[in-house]
Amino acid sequence: MTTPAAFARPAVAALGGGHGLAASLQALQLVTDKITAIVTVADDGGSSGRLRDEFDILPPGDLRMALAALCDTSEWGLQWRDALQHRFAGDGPLGGHALGNLIIASLWDLLGDPVAGLDLVGRLLGARGRVLPMAAEPLRIEASVLGADPDRPDEVVDVVGQVEVATARGRVLSVRLHPDPPAPCVPAVEAVEHADWVILGPGSWYSSVMPHLLVPDLCHALVQTKARKMLTLNMMRHDGETEGFAAADYLEVLTAHAPDLHLDVVLADVSVDGEEADLLTEAAGRLGARVVRAPVADTDTPGTHDPLRLAAAYRDVLDD
Amino acid sequence: MTTPAAFARPAVAALGGGHGLAASLQALQLVTDKITAIVTVADDGGSSGRLRDEFDILPPGDLRMALAALCDTSEWGLQWRDALQHRFAGDGPLGGHALGNLIIASLWDLLGDPVAGLDLVGRLLGARGRVLPMAAEPLRIEASVLGADPDRPDEVVDVVGQVEVATARGRVLSVRLHPDPPAPCVPAVEAVEHADWVILGPGSWYSSVMPHLLVPDLCHALVQTKARKMLTLNMMRHDGETEGFAAADYLEVLTAHAPDLHLDVVLADVSVDGEEADLLTEAAGRLGARVVRAPVADTDTPGTHDPLRLAAAYRDVLDD
Repeated sequence: MTTPAAFARPAVAALGGGHGLAASLQALQLVTDKITAIVTVADDGGSSGRLRDEFDILPPGDLRMALAALCDTSEWGLQWRDALQHRFAGDGPLGGHALGNLIIASLWDLLGDPVAGLDLVGRLLGARGRVLPMAAEPLRIEASVLGADPDRPDEVVDVVGQVEVATARGRVLSVRLHPDPPAPCVPAVEAVEHADWVILGPGSWYSSVMPHLLVPDLCHALVQTKARKMLTLNMMRHDGETEGFAAADYLEVLTAHAPDLHLDVVLADVSVDGEEADLLTEAAGRLGARVVRAPVADTDTPGTHDPLRLAAAYRDVLDD
Repeated sequence: MTTPAAFARPAVAALGGGHGLAASLQALQLVTDKITAIVTVADDGGSSGRLRDEFDILPPGDLRMALAALCDTSEWGLQWRDALQHRFAGDGPLGGHALGNLIIASLWDLLGDPVAGLDLVGRLLGARGRVLPMAAEPLRIEASVLGADPDRPDEVVDVVGQVEVATARGRVLSVRLHPDPPAPCVPAVEAVEHADWVILGPGSWYSSVMPHLLVPDLCHALVQTKARKMLTLNMMRHDGETEGFAAADYLEVLTAHAPDLHLDVVLADVSVDGEEADLLTEAAGRLGARVVRAPVADTDTPGTHDPLRLAAAYRDVLDD
């Protein structure tokens, strides 16, 4: 492995949310330390949803996971990463809350600035990069879904909430954010403008990846930036919002949400082959991108990326 | 001010709980950095009480306050101290919880060792010393109180719980701990054995200071240690468990709980004067101690010590 020299390491802005973004960041931090993670803030489930209900704050969960993924691997960093990821047991008032969410929420209240609070947690972890919210206010996601109700397969229903959208049955036709347009997070917009590379995905396509394109300032920066752009495709899954998707379908959805967005690289697992790979190459070509197929699957956990294999693929693309 | 050279700084074990101990530690850390705070773990009110109810753990609140008091004064230390002390707003499931209590509880669960968890928080704060629980298990305090019920002034009632004892009306006759005897915290016992000075108090006398004497191993170490011993008297208050106490009464209660304990110094505010001071000198003499009177009151907050004035008094005694 040839690691780029420090001065040559590319600045990368990585956009997404949830476990998909966390896996991507775990991979990226092996390749560069100039990382800005830009994280969706539409989550309304679990510990984050309860904190939104109680304090009307940005949902901290995906931000916490991104910080944990960028953590320094010293004993200190790993101990505090484990503490951040620790969940209270049981089903009492604290049960299920991740400690890191509570730390982030407290720092936001104390410092009065979401970015300052996240930067302080980043320093605690010795994070190899920065974690920012994609918008400056908490968002609700809403999707029009065809056949969400299995008894009425031809009916379009509005589904509200990230959890509901991510797990919706039927076919998502479009997603919207509330408030619309959301207030942008200026440092996140600037990170996209000044990046050498932008990486979109992987992640729940409609509820974690597409939302970034619905923040007008962020989408504009993505279209205008001189950075090269990579789309990391999801591993194929057979449930939830993109059930039945072929690889090329992900690109079609992307174009529907951001018609002016061109790409340089589409990264797919080697399991995308045959006719599906040909269709993907065609679709990518329409966006100006070449397809890179690499063995990036986590063979132990179907549907997820292996961070070390993904790191190798990222290095090869970024070195190129 | 002549600060002792680093090599000559005395090792001090400071025993107590709550705001009294925190003020004492804030003072001490200006005088030495070889501090071991040994903190009562019988609190069952507020955020600590709720955590005990939910997870059956040591009450973290007084431990957190002691850590905050020993915090390094760098920007880093002060930010994390403020974060530890931060309380969630409102009266929802998190409302009123101190973040530091939640961090300590998580680290205990993660590391499986109260002392290791407290040491890690100490490192986060750059604490000038160590904070240890006085026992290895959560305790309940129980007091026999004469006239707790104002309608029956001659009746002795059992009052259970630190909050209840600290705020009991009537006269506390004796206090007990459950379980009895409590499992000692071995490093706390060792800290007393190896200290140059031991400081008892200030703090709620029955519910924060006397409990240490009811942990047999700790009381034995206090009696046997070659350390010199100072008792820091409470500022006179006119409510709660020691209502109506004169200065000498605190010593009488101490002797009732630990007949073999001798002292070297009793530190009182200059407001203890006249006949009360004479009686205090007599009572102290019976315990082998001289009385040091110094202006240690916080004139803005009646009933509390001023950490800087207390620091000056501690320095003078410890330098002597």
